[in-house]
Amino acid sequence: LTQATRGRSGLARTATSLSCHLEERAHAARAAAGLKAGLSHAPNMDGKERFVFFSLPHIAISSEGAVGQIQRPGREELSSACGALVGALKQFQSDKSSMDAHGEGSHDVADPEFTILKQRLAERIRSEGQDVDKMDLVDMTNLAQRAITADLETMIAATVDTVKQDYAVVTGVHIHSWGSAACGNATLEWIAPASIYVVTNGKRTSIDISVRRRQVVHW
Amino acid sequence: LTQATRGRSGLARTATSLSCHLEERAHAARAAAGLKAGLSHAPNMDGKERFVFFSLPHIAISSEGAVGQIQRPGREELSSACGALVGALKQFQSDKSSMDAHGEGSHDVADPEFTILKQRLAERIRSEGQDVDKMDLVDMTNLAQRAITADLETMIAATVDTVKQDYAVVTGVHIHSWGSAACGNATLEWIAPASIYVVTNGKRTSIDISVRRRQVVHW
Repeated sequence: LTQATRGRSGLARTATSLSCHLEERAHAARAAAGLKAGLSHAPNMDGKERFVFFSLPHIAISSEGAVGQIQRPGREELSSACGALVGALKQFQSDKSSMDAHGEGSHDVADPEFTILKQRLAERIRSEGQDVDKMDLVDMTNLAQRAITADLETMIAATVDTVKQDYAVVTGVHIHSWGSAACGNATLEWIAPASIYVVTNGKRTSIDISVRRRQVVHW
Repeated sequence: LTQATRGRSGLARTATSLSCHLEERAHAARAAAGLKAGLSHAPNMDGKERFVFFSLPHIAISSEGAVGQIQRPGREELSSACGALVGALKQFQSDKSSMDAHGEGSHDVADPEFTILKQRLAERIRSEGQDVDKMDLVDMTNLAQRAITADLETMIAATVDTVKQDYAVVTGVHIHSWGSAACGNATLEWIAPASIYVVTNGKRTSIDISVRRRQVVHW
């Protein structure tokens, strides 16, 4: 793990403001029209457009080590992160038929985001040959990270023109480690990196964050 | 119109950071699970939870008065806002069958947000008895505002418990009036208010922004 930031500043803050819910993240990665619209707003005064794509499902690991639990500021009780992944995993494990509730291209009108997310997760669980009963929240979060990254890269291939556009991709899992009042209300944010790379003039260069760990920690 | 802010600070900035694309706004208003999750994160240390819901589709009116056109910072050419509404209106007017491309509860897997948005707009155009050929972007934006506000209020009724939760609703249209370099690159942001009210202890009180215009302008 790389500690990206303390006190909700820096990279983790950017990631949080970009997308607070995994549903939105999953959507962003599959919404061609929205992605194209966003790309068309980038500065282009020197003839090149440049983007950074972040793909960061989130999970909480409390200061006491509890997976999925977060002490949100001003809240008395613990709550969950990611709530959507916790909910999907619970539904899948308690009722297998919920994995087939919606086929590709169909959704619940009152709940489009969550139903499309569940459909996508169920599809990925099958294509990876996972046994959902043996999965915990960490497994589900990592699976979501792989699914979102795959969708993001598909969308980039469909929308980005590397002749006139350069871009970077930052994927991983955003980890909230927020402490209770008893632990001094620490609000540590971490990124567990998956793949980080830039594509300039069509040439891909990987960035190995582990080499720079010391530097990043000293932010 | 009420000038909410200059230089991208204040209310308009909050609105922008909350939701940059109309698709997201439309989604937020219909996503029960996501809304409930958001509400469950609010501070509750004094026993009450409090929320402010914003519903603000956006439109550009350039400093030269061109409707739908925006000079984005660092971009050479003009672009559109709201791009999704411009696109939906163009599709509906050039091909009426595009209004029926997706029934309720179905979407294009590669483009869930835009197809669900179009379905919702087509439904609203019909229920209001509008003639889409006579609509311009201002009509479409106002229709979107009414649709989103109606959906938001439906979702609030389905998720908020007024015994332990107070809330405010701010609806309207967010107007970007961004100038070209020739006009000094002004970046004025306006809100055309629709309805603004608070509900405390289950009692609704309207707020008449027009009375406070002078005060707001002097922010």
